[in-house]
Amino acid sequence: MASSFGRIFKLTTWGESHGPALGVVIEGCPAGIRLDVSDIQRELDRRRVGQSAVTSPRNEGDRAEMLSGVFEGVTTGAPISLITYNRDVDSSKYEPLRDVFRPGHADYTYWAKYGHRDHRGGGRSSARETWGRVAAGAIARKVLASVGCEVYGFAREIGGIAMETFDRGEIERNLVRCPDPVAAERMVAAIGEAKAGNDSLGGIVEVRGTGVPVGLGEPTFDKLDALIGQAMLSIPAVKGVELGEGFAVVRSRGSEANDSFYVDGGRVRTRTNNAGGTLGGISSGEDVVVRVAVKPTSSVAQDQQTVDTRLEPRTILVEGRHDPSVVPRAVPVAEAMLALVLADLLLLNRAARIGWEG
Amino acid sequence: MASSFGRIFKLTTWGESHGPALGVVIEGCPAGIRLDVSDIQRELDRRRVGQSAVTSPRNEGDRAEMLSGVFEGVTTGAPISLITYNRDVDSSKYEPLRDVFRPGHADYTYWAKYGHRDHRGGGRSSARETWGRVAAGAIARKVLASVGCEVYGFAREIGGIAMETFDRGEIERNLVRCPDPVAAERMVAAIGEAKAGNDSLGGIVEVRGTGVPVGLGEPTFDKLDALIGQAMLSIPAVKGVELGEGFAVVRSRGSEANDSFYVDGGRVRTRTNNAGGTLGGISSGEDVVVRVAVKPTSSVAQDQQTVDTRLEPRTILVEGRHDPSVVPRAVPVAEAMLALVLADLLLLNRAARIGWEG
Amino acid sequence: MASSFGRIFKLTTWGESHGPALGVVIEGCPAGIRLDVSDIQRELDRRRVGQSAVTSPRNEGDRAEMLSGVFEGVTTGAPISLITYNRDVDSSKYEPLRDVFRPGHADYTYWAKYGHRDHRGGGRSSARETWGRVAAGAIARKVLASVGCEVYGFAREIGGIAMETFDRGEIERNLVRCPDPVAAERMVAAIGEAKAGNDSLGGIVEVRGTGVPVGLGEPTFDKLDALIGQAMLSIPAVKGVELGEGFAVVRSRGSEANDSFYVDGGRVRTRTNNAGGTLGGISSGEDVVVRVAVKPTSSVAQDQQTVDTRLEPRTILVEGRHDPSVVPRAVPVAEAMLALVLADLLLLNRAARIGWEG
Amino acid sequence: MASSFGRIFKLTTWGESHGPALGVVIEGCPAGIRLDVSDIQRELDRRRVGQSAVTSPRNEGDRAEMLSGVFEGVTTGAPISLITYNRDVDSSKYEPLRDVFRPGHADYTYWAKYGHRDHRGGGRSSARETWGRVAAGAIARKVLASVGCEVYGFAREIGGIAMETFDRGEIERNLVRCPDPVAAERMVAAIGEAKAGNDSLGGIVEVRGTGVPVGLGEPTFDKLDALIGQAMLSIPAVKGVELGEGFAVVRSRGSEANDSFYVDGGRVRTRTNNAGGTLGGISSGEDVVVRVAVKPTSSVAQDQQTVDTRLEPRTILVEGRHDPSVVPRAVPVAEAMLALVLADLLLLNRAARIGWEG
Repeated sequence: MASSFGRIFKLTTWGESHGPALGVVIEGCPAGIRLDVSDIQRELDRRRVGQSAVTSPRNEGDRAEMLSGVFEGVTTGAPISLITYNRDVDSSKYEPLRDVFRPGHADYTYWAKYGHRDHRGGGRSSARETWGRVAAGAIARKVLASVGCEVYGFAREIGGIAMETFDRGEIERNLVRCPDPVAAERMVAAIGEAKAGNDSLGGIVEVRGTGVPVGLGEPTFDKLDALIGQAMLSIPAVKGVELGEGFAVVRSRGSEANDSFYVDGGRVRTRTNNAGGTLGGISSGEDVVVRVAVKPTSSVAQDQQTVDTRLEPRTILVEGRHDPSVVPRAVPVAEAMLALVLADLLLLNRAARIGWEG
Repeated sequence: MASSFGRIFKLTTWGESHGPALGVVIEGCPAGIRLDVSDIQRELDRRRVGQSAVTSPRNEGDRAEMLSGVFEGVTTGAPISLITYNRDVDSSKYEPLRDVFRPGHADYTYWAKYGHRDHRGGGRSSARETWGRVAAGAIARKVLASVGCEVYGFAREIGGIAMETFDRGEIERNLVRCPDPVAAERMVAAIGEAKAGNDSLGGIVEVRGTGVPVGLGEPTFDKLDALIGQAMLSIPAVKGVELGEGFAVVRSRGSEANDSFYVDGGRVRTRTNNAGGTLGGISSGEDVVVRVAVKPTSSVAQDQQTVDTRLEPRTILVEGRHDPSVVPRAVPVAEAMLALVLADLLLLNRAARIGWEG
Repeated sequence: MASSFGRIFKLTTWGESHGPALGVVIEGCPAGIRLDVSDIQRELDRRRVGQSAVTSPRNEGDRAEMLSGVFEGVTTGAPISLITYNRDVDSSKYEPLRDVFRPGHADYTYWAKYGHRDHRGGGRSSARETWGRVAAGAIARKVLASVGCEVYGFAREIGGIAMETFDRGEIERNLVRCPDPVAAERMVAAIGEAKAGNDSLGGIVEVRGTGVPVGLGEPTFDKLDALIGQAMLSIPAVKGVELGEGFAVVRSRGSEANDSFYVDGGRVRTRTNNAGGTLGGISSGEDVVVRVAVKPTSSVAQDQQTVDTRLEPRTILVEGRHDPSVVPRAVPVAEAMLALVLADLLLLNRAARIGWEG
Repeated sequence: MASSFGRIFKLTTWGESHGPALGVVIEGCPAGIRLDVSDIQRELDRRRVGQSAVTSPRNEGDRAEMLSGVFEGVTTGAPISLITYNRDVDSSKYEPLRDVFRPGHADYTYWAKYGHRDHRGGGRSSARETWGRVAAGAIARKVLASVGCEVYGFAREIGGIAMETFDRGEIERNLVRCPDPVAAERMVAAIGEAKAGNDSLGGIVEVRGTGVPVGLGEPTFDKLDALIGQAMLSIPAVKGVELGEGFAVVRSRGSEANDSFYVDGGRVRTRTNNAGGTLGGISSGEDVVVRVAVKPTSSVAQDQQTVDTRLEPRTILVEGRHDPSVVPRAVPVAEAMLALVLADLLLLNRAARIGWEG
């Protein structure tokens, strides 16, 4: 089971939802970056459960310890190991699920593939694994900051309610991370309703990279688009990803879809950004714009039809502490994945040309 | 510039649109597979330009030569090298584009990244590179056939016209590869109209894997979904990808989106397939269902505003032989990419368990 | 700074000599293997310092904690994280070495490459990093045991004293891990003498794989020989590696060097094993035989001429707790590296042939 | 069967000894390098058989065609494909060897691993595969030249005759590539004698990198030493590799083995170079010095005992055109491998530090 991502700036995550600890090792972080564990904790706190009424009440703590790779506050180039010990873990609720496959979850496929699995809280397949992604993403952001590049994200739509206005300053001010405060209120209400009905909601997360240098991405299989595709579809519950106008572009004509070039202050720009910041798989310098489809949480406290490991039919009701919508918490995870892709390609890009440093 | 894809079954493509030849090297193909160059040519012929009124008139020939890896009709496990020499290449029409950036193309980003580029026919960024993908995909299909797995695809929508009926037998009977013959006729007409107006159309391609064994995909970053995401977004002109219900699932509730399990003939199945054949990033045995958004061809014979390498404004009109819609030809490419992902994960899966062979 | 090794069975080590902890993450371990932390501790104890008069007195403890990847005593296929917290760490002796380059050590090259480094105890370049290799190697041994393959090693030569007899049972009975008890005594005496003279000794370690299945190794760059070469030369202090007759074979003739085939009990064997168990980079079923040259410990308590980070000349005397010869402790490390290579190639080999399971 | 080497500057070789063609694809070559096919042909000519009385009379031609990656004489960053068509191929002599395992060759292990193999001229296991390595190495040399780094090699010892003097200018003046013209004459005579006796000789090749920048190599598993180990032991017939003093260092004491630092013209140097140009796996700026043990050619025209695919005993006499010693031709191959490792690490090193370009 490979659990690594990246070519140069690479992370490897480990740990199970109800195991003793979870962690991540980051290889290939350049030396010379000022890094404090608080830089990482800040992002982890944005991902944390138990933040609000719209998320799961489990109090994970999620406190990161940094065990290597930084000396006297500066990265040394050595692997950075981050760990968090699991606290507040109650596995007893999962005991009845030991031999049964929850619909929408990885229980069946893990069992079929590996034969033996840790069923507690989804084990390795739990979204708790994203802890390491967000932690590593915080370091990737530091790498990006060295060239003035930044990543942010927000909820575009939840339960069919779409944002209609955009104010970046609003994003972190509401529980659902929506840049439209009016839509945000409606989203919160919808989530509450779904929860009351023992159901869950999906939505669309958008993440953007700003200040992205021109030239990131390898032209064939490691296109910026392609690595973003892998990164986003590796997030639990994500079922679709698009760049720029994405699926909508299929209904426009070529003459409309093309972004015209012009020069602004000595820099090549495009008048529109239908492409979402990439051309031929390489960043163009315009904002990288990515949207991901997040399915409604699979754990719903309703009776569901399923089977067990003896292939007998079973009716189950999944208890436990679950987010009625993971969309708000998916925002920092999707941001982290975009930051990881961009940081990796930034470092890789240094090898593209002879004499480029000059 | 990395140009490889795959972990065990790996392809590396090379070649430029107007260079002397293009090719692909496939590493990791298992020994013992009966393989004839005609198996490959058949798929290449489906991808070929000059097939019909709806595609570019360039006659590429595209004849594959197989130079290694097969002995007396059977693979040996050694790398398989496939090559096609470019014929019918006329680069003169590209001379005026040597120093100018075509909107929607990779001209600007390649220039910015590499400093020096082959501008003729898009050089390395040309969709002609997909020749090697389709060739390698034909071999991947043979690997999949050994376990009864198959891949096919079709055009779901072109220029806003969506299919309404599905008859798999119809797909290869019409010029646009649409399983709905009525929609197909309307699509053909729309493409003709767009062409007459010097414009182009986009659309949606769907590809499916059938008979996919349970267990393909690595749980974290190399999820089946994630590798499909990378694979599809590495295809030129693709701007979005989704699995199963994809973006539509964000508007359903968890209780609706979950696919219930049941047992059919000793095999675990799901009653619906909203997930598109994957659970937790691992194939469930249901059909793998993937849709990709293909943008309208960027080369349109209309005046477009742009700039050149001296950063001066320019108005250009892109001539040359271009598909008014690449959707029909994108079908075999997307099929190939799905076949490549599945074959690679199939081989990788052999290492998942001790004693699994038993 | 990449710190990973392996294609399928892959380890990533992290941690510095005087940091809070060290660890290793193992990806790709197959599910279904019975594994207890004591299986790992046993090998770690063989590597531990403070074992005897011939090794460093530092009491590292080296207690492994297993934090993931094993559920109810059996591997799940998920990444296995192992950690040990550093105890008994006294960095004060390294303070005078903060800005000076110890001859024979990595101080200068790390400083030149990374600009900023953890100088305490060699930081990342310390042989303490091999803790994770031995831990991961213990798991690799379990994978190998599933096919009856085993790895062992011994000291062949220390300080110019070579073994003359071979009794495998003697190896772990003496302080230097020499299969010749008479030579062992002389080696112990020589090490004592070197230590008394504030000097150190090198030697030759031999490791062998027995019961190795035929077919391990990829024919071109990932030959069994080549990966062993990488593995062994990645061990600190190793300056040479050879297989079978190795450097000695250059003085024999082809007619002598070739190992003749015969059949023994339905199995193809060779009458001699000059090749050391590989042919064309693939295991032949004969014992894999590897020898590595271990240089004398670089830390010697004598005055040495060097320079510092201001490029000023300095005379230094390296204090601290150092092995007068690392050869005995290099044995379990070299064993681990061989086990890791073999386990990885064993898993990779499952993809070599269609129908091979049959 | 993986056939790739390198992390950023990566080559993939393909082709069989008696197939229609052989070739190599080089990914990751930076854009902006002036490159002509004659740069490559020059190195290939040094490797070619049929150069002299001491090598095989087969006239391979070996003419390289460059099919991609270079536009108007300058690399574009795109994959570079090089191909040579096999001429002068006579497979009839191999027909009697179709079902029999030649001692010292890969026949048995390929058969056991893959089930089906191209027996003609050794198929994929032939040293003819090194054509692509030398071709790729020629391009790696261009990358290295951009920083003033160079690679050269020579025969140190053949058939027990060792060089005693060193004059770099002599190397390419004699048939065996020995820097000592007197030893060279004796080596030529010894090879002639061995050939007359239907036998073959081994020897030691030394390769050196000069002008190597400080900082190449990743500290743990991708040490410069380790990658050189993999590179050299991936060359057919190589059975050992050592750096600097290598195996000889095991008999010196630490106080002798350490290379003292001093400053020369503002640059940190060592007074001796026992380490062979690496410290902690990273280049120190001193010459990189590598020696490899080349076994005597396995094909000898004498009766040899072996078995066939039915596991029956057989006596065989291997005919065909074979070098009585491959040492002289191994020189450019070992040079190429060193150049490839250094070029790859040079590009990788660009990602080591933030702000290092400044």
